[in-house]
Amino acid sequence: MPQLQRIAIAPSQFQQGQISLTKEQQHYLGRVLRLREGDRFIAMDGRGKWWLAQLAAEQAEVLEPLAVATELPVSITLMVALPKGNGFDEVVRCCTELGVACIAPVLSDRTLLNPSPQKLERWRRIAAEAAEQSERSFVPTILEPVAFNSAVTADATTQRYICEARGEYPHLKHLINSVSTEIIVATGPEGGWTEKEIENAIAAGFQPVSLGRRILRAVTAPVVALTLISASCEV
Amino acid sequence: MPQLQRIAIAPSQFQQGQISLTKEQQHYLGRVLRLREGDRFIAMDGRGKWWLAQLAAEQAEVLEPLAVATELPVSITLMVALPKGNGFDEVVRCCTELGVACIAPVLSDRTLLNPSPQKLERWRRIAAEAAEQSERSFVPTILEPVAFNSAVTADATTQRYICEARGEYPHLKHLINSVSTEIIVATGPEGGWTEKEIENAIAAGFQPVSLGRRILRAVTAPVVALTLISASCEV
Repeated sequence: MPQLQRIAIAPSQFQQGQISLTKEQQHYLGRVLRLREGDRFIAMDGRGKWWLAQLAAEQAEVLEPLAVATELPVSITLMVALPKGNGFDEVVRCCTELGVACIAPVLSDRTLLNPSPQKLERWRRIAAEAAEQSERSFVPTILEPVAFNSAVTADATTQRYICEARGEYPHLKHLINSVSTEIIVATGPEGGWTEKEIENAIAAGFQPVSLGRRILRAVTAPVVALTLISASCEV
Repeated sequence: MPQLQRIAIAPSQFQQGQISLTKEQQHYLGRVLRLREGDRFIAMDGRGKWWLAQLAAEQAEVLEPLAVATELPVSITLMVALPKGNGFDEVVRCCTELGVACIAPVLSDRTLLNPSPQKLERWRRIAAEAAEQSERSFVPTILEPVAFNSAVTADATTQRYICEARGEYPHLKHLINSVSTEIIVATGPEGGWTEKEIENAIAAGFQPVSLGRRILRAVTAPVVALTLISASCEV
């Protein structure tokens, strides 16, 4: 199974076998995903079309269309505060089964420990196994853990949600916009996000949402959020 | 937290402080739940009203109305084929957080082992802990394991789904009828239900449904099914 990175493009960016990349996409491919010219990645148009592409300077060449019967038509990034113990293993496994494109572990004010590099390797191995078992076409990307406040930068092109149990926020089910091509959803640590974290996220364009009236554990909330988003977007 | 059994009633069954019980409800309370005259249980009308009731012969006396801010307006029974190892612990924990009313472990053609009585005690303890942590008002009932084919008896009053990964079944999200007061959802073992089990379930009024295009593990499917049903029914 190819371990290729994926990005969402607007259908209009694909023309005559080429994909013209926005400045943000160039930055994401080069600086965040660390791809170089000639490297391959997946471009998806959010309407169920996927292409294998090869990075050039400010554009990418389309090599071939891809068959993606088991992949979602949207790119979902799960930003998840690292839970205690080995709970993150199960989050990676379940969310991979549910079609997540990228998992971004974050350190929050209430996260206790910075994980060892061995943990990251372990999560990537779990994601690869789960992708294969669930018959996905691609393995989700697991990013290196970063501080939550540095991860929530403003970007108007993606739909963004932050899940919070306390507070009278609307249920995520009412807000999912299934025509989006990129969705980011953030779930908190044991004890929830701090007020300041919620404020920062809202300032960066995240919509605070509820996942229901009961208090979910930090390892259950990501699975519930992914289930609701993937079911809503599945064609 | 009271460990009381719950049953769903039609609003018309509640009159002047009394609940008239149907023959099926009398059977369920007496034979399945093993309550005797004078025992207490919860009656819920599927529209968000709950009462503490006391069993008499063919009726029940209402003792007091109950406040249920964190409980679902429907009674969801999860019928789940026992997975290998300790996977069921996590199913009980997550589904309790998601508002399940009753968990019925079943032995399927592909279930390897009949669990020990200690397991049942363990699951009930986990359900009680999870109900408390998720701030629910009630602890879900965990029934004793029975064979799947004896558990799927016909009953026209409940909505019934059987989840199956293979086969071109409609997605559960399209079929949930959120005005139901009682829903049963069945999820299978590793390797899925046998053809004969699916046929028996369909004959008993179960609708076969899909949970999406990817293959979910036996421990993920119940959480996904519960998430979709509870989100759809949550007021």
